[in-house]
Amino acid sequence: MAAFPFIIEATDGAARAGRLETPRGAISTPAFMPLGTAGTVKALTAGQVRASGAEIILANTYHLMLRPTAERVARLGGLHRFMGWEGPILTDSGGFQVMSLAKINEVSEAGVRFQSHIDGSRHDLSPERSIAIQADLLGADIVMQLDECVAWPAEEARAAEALRLSARWGARSKAAFGARDRQALFGIQQGSTFEALRRESAGRLVETGFDGYAIGGLAVGEGHDAMCEVLDYASGLLPPDRPRYLMGVGKPIDLVEAVWRGVDMFDCALPTRSGRHGQVWTSRGPRNLKNAEFADDEAPLDAALNCPASRDYSKAYLHHLVKSREILGQVLLSWHNLAFFHALMGQLREAIGQGRLDAFRRDFRALQ
Amino acid sequence: MAAFPFIIEATDGAARAGRLETPRGAISTPAFMPLGTAGTVKALTAGQVRASGAEIILANTYHLMLRPTAERVARLGGLHRFMGWEGPILTDSGGFQVMSLAKINEVSEAGVRFQSHIDGSRHDLSPERSIAIQADLLGADIVMQLDECVAWPAEEARAAEALRLSARWGARSKAAFGARDRQALFGIQQGSTFEALRRESAGRLVETGFDGYAIGGLAVGEGHDAMCEVLDYASGLLPPDRPRYLMGVGKPIDLVEAVWRGVDMFDCALPTRSGRHGQVWTSRGPRNLKNAEFADDEAPLDAALNCPASRDYSKAYLHHLVKSREILGQVLLSWHNLAFFHALMGQLREAIGQGRLDAFRRDFRALQ
Repeated sequence: MAAFPFIIEATDGAARAGRLETPRGAISTPAFMPLGTAGTVKALTAGQVRASGAEIILANTYHLMLRPTAERVARLGGLHRFMGWEGPILTDSGGFQVMSLAKINEVSEAGVRFQSHIDGSRHDLSPERSIAIQADLLGADIVMQLDECVAWPAEEARAAEALRLSARWGARSKAAFGARDRQALFGIQQGSTFEALRRESAGRLVETGFDGYAIGGLAVGEGHDAMCEVLDYASGLLPPDRPRYLMGVGKPIDLVEAVWRGVDMFDCALPTRSGRHGQVWTSRGPRNLKNAEFADDEAPLDAALNCPASRDYSKAYLHHLVKSREILGQVLLSWHNLAFFHALMGQLREAIGQGRLDAFRRDFRALQ
Repeated sequence: MAAFPFIIEATDGAARAGRLETPRGAISTPAFMPLGTAGTVKALTAGQVRASGAEIILANTYHLMLRPTAERVARLGGLHRFMGWEGPILTDSGGFQVMSLAKINEVSEAGVRFQSHIDGSRHDLSPERSIAIQADLLGADIVMQLDECVAWPAEEARAAEALRLSARWGARSKAAFGARDRQALFGIQQGSTFEALRRESAGRLVETGFDGYAIGGLAVGEGHDAMCEVLDYASGLLPPDRPRYLMGVGKPIDLVEAVWRGVDMFDCALPTRSGRHGQVWTSRGPRNLKNAEFADDEAPLDAALNCPASRDYSKAYLHHLVKSREILGQVLLSWHNLAFFHALMGQLREAIGQGRLDAFRRDFRALQ
């Protein structure tokens, strides 16, 4: 059943440090997945992404099915070859971005009918079509079921309806995916902020049986504390022997608290998006490099990080690039931010291995 | 007198293949210098610039004196350290860009008074101030004299006036520069399209005595044929034992024809600027990667080029990046274009060494 071996190497409370072994390489967990939206981690070469410490990236079905189209990517040899990334790729189902970016025409039991935000063209996305795009056309290593993510805050009845539709779509996704040796399928827990619904969702997912389990419906505006409250119960409802993936999260402090609550995988646009806008992440929180205080700062962003962007340029130079709106500023800040996020994952792994994660997260929080 | 040894290794007609030896490394000539305007070759890391084959880059005094200011670059250890480029750097004098970008308040015997295009602040640029900025504050390896470049077409009297002012500024630049072991000073020939004025200018420059000689006042709208006509006489008026640098040129065909006429060095924004706008250079001329013909093209830009951007991605992928306005498209196209320009310089060196440059340029022209 489990396509990819998932070895838990250490635990500390609910937190786990492990290794997810894929045919394209092992992923040390907790793992952060950079966002490679349209077949590129924005502003970075695949080599720079790899050098930042990434072992897996995420790509967006919605963007790719519209442009260049999944069929074209397939003709060109699949997504790995298309974008020059040899490591594992996780694709989302397309559902979340259809809901946030496209003009929705209809959500029905069959799936979603929508119009492209690029050219208004009409498309259908069903559980089966999403699997075909992800698994067969793009050739993703980890494939996500189509789900319906409700907005926050949600009425309980609305959240229940969405999780039940998601559960039925999950079962159809599993049937469409079938049995595969070299690709894995993850289900997605929904249920908004309602414990009983999260429990029902987890039960239905386990009944269907997936290679990994995602926690959806968070990072939709509820805030850090509410997210932690949901994770306090939602994470432990998922099978302990399979990877748990918290979708769309987050800030470094979110990652630390979610790992503490048993999450193994994350994805977020934050490090690259904030890097393109002049913001860098540090162990003392975010900094805006546009600020004049950096104009004469000879120190690098982080001399201890094994990343050229973090180590080899003064903050004064990066400030200059940001102020001058130079592309290289966007490149270097994105690169540093990814290196920072991956290094944080390494620190969390180490803290779990040494049984001092609680102390680590308290120290980390105190510095923010 | 000659700060940097210039060894001519082969000649073919007026063309020369050589080596300019600087304390920061040798430059094989003919050489193309990528434009590092504001302390960055736009969109590329210093490592990518080096990997493209660049042995020297050009930086702009005008941009750097305004932002982050030459004094700040000096405090931060000089331009090489600031931008992380260890090879030689040539800086222009600032004069050309003052004329094209700033609001000019006054051009006098003393120098130029202008207002910044960024914030309207007032500045003076004299021959002495330009030398201080380039040689002492930025720490350039090759320093250019301040000159006055007239627009094209120019009245002969106006062109004569400008070349004579440039000659006097050249002598003042030389006096301000003094004798230096680790830095070189280049004079700039003016005279527009008038042979007698080009001759007078060259004579005055040689009288002052420089480490190298630039040909200014071309690439200002006169077109390829008129440029070649001027080079037919202008290049040979400059001392044969010192490097000749044609400023602001150009397209590949311009480079080929100028090398044939005895030019050794070039700089131009073209490869990086056109790369940022979706244009790539090939041995068969420029191509616009936005065109639909590339949407399914599996071939790389140039499998024979030792550059990841040229070799490791399909044109279909690059087309997708350009259409999606992805920063990585700007990065990869800029990178490829630089690699193409540097490879062309290598082909010219080889053709000169083998005495077949005339055949090379005829073949090259036939493919454009």
